[in-house]
Amino acid sequence: MADILHRIGVEQAAPQQVYDAITTLDGLSGWWTENTTGDTSPGGVIQFRFPQGGFDMKVAELDAGRRVRWDIVDGPPEWVGTTVQWDLHQEGDYTIVLFKHEGWREQVEFMNHCSTKWATFLMSLKRLVETGKGEPSPNDVRISDWH
Amino acid sequence: MADILHRIGVEQAAPQQVYDAITTLDGLSGWWTENTTGDTSPGGVIQFRFPQGGFDMKVAELDAGRRVRWDIVDGPPEWVGTTVQWDLHQEGDYTIVLFKHEGWREQVEFMNHCSTKWATFLMSLKRLVETGKGEPSPNDVRISDWH
Repeated sequence: MADILHRIGVEQAAPQQVYDAITTLDGLSGWWTENTTGDTSPGGVIQFRFPQGGFDMKVAELDAGRRVRWDIVDGPPEWVGTTVQWDLHQEGDYTIVLFKHEGWREQVEFMNHCSTKWATFLMSLKRLVETGKGEPSPNDVRISDWH
Repeated sequence: MADILHRIGVEQAAPQQVYDAITTLDGLSGWWTENTTGDTSPGGVIQFRFPQGGFDMKVAELDAGRRVRWDIVDGPPEWVGTTVQWDLHQEGDYTIVLFKHEGWREQVEFMNHCSTKWATFLMSLKRLVETGKGEPSPNDVRISDWH
C-alpha cells in the first residue's frame, strides 16, 4: 500500500472557507473540474469529469471545518478502493490543508502522475480561496503528455 | 518506509537536456536553488542552500541521459539517509521525468510539505528546460507558512 501526501497553507483564510471549497459543487468546480455534479451530502456520490475521464467519490466523512473523506467508487482501476482525506486546521494567518490519497495497491507510474497533478490542483484550491479564481479543468495546469 | 513520487513531461526536450539540468551546478541553480555549490561528479557532494536551511547530497549514481541518484548525507533529520532518484526517458516530443524521494522513516507532516514542494520545483525544472527560466529559491513558489 502506498500513499500520496501533500500540504498547503491557504493565507488569510479560515478553515471553514477551505472546507466550503471542498464540500460544495460550486467550490469544487472552481479549482478541480468545472464538470462537477452529484450529491455532496454524507453518503452521497460526487461525479468529477475531465476530458480524459473521471472519478466518482462517495462522501464518507464530513466534519465541518475539520475533515473530509471520500471513498473512490468508480474511475480508473488504480483509484477504485482508494481514499482521499482532507484535514484542516488553522495556524496563524493560514489554514493548513493536510491531504492524503491513500490505499494505492502498487507504486505504478500513474501514481507518480497523480501525485504531481494533485499538487497543482491543491495550488489551484489555494488560489481560488485566496483570490477568487482557481485553475480547474479544462483549464488546469498541464504537467506532461498525460495532461 | 514511505516515498514521494512525481512525474512530469518536459516538452520539446531531449533526455540529455533534462539530465544536464539535474547534474550541473548551472542547471540545478536554475530551477532548485540559486545557492548550489559543490562537486557534481560521481561520489561528490552537492550543497543546496535555502533561506531556511539546506541539504547535502552525495552523487550515488550517474547514467548519462537516463538516471541520477543522490544519497542525502546532511540536512533535516527526516531527510538524512533518504534517497532521491531521477529516471528519464523519451516519449514522443516529451522527456518523461520519474522522480522518487524514498526511504522516509515516517509519514510526518514535513513529508506532506516536501511532496508538494518537490512538485512545484519539478514544474520549475520543466519551465527552465522549456523556456530558459525556472523559479529557483529564493524566488520559488510559496505554498504555505513553511514556505
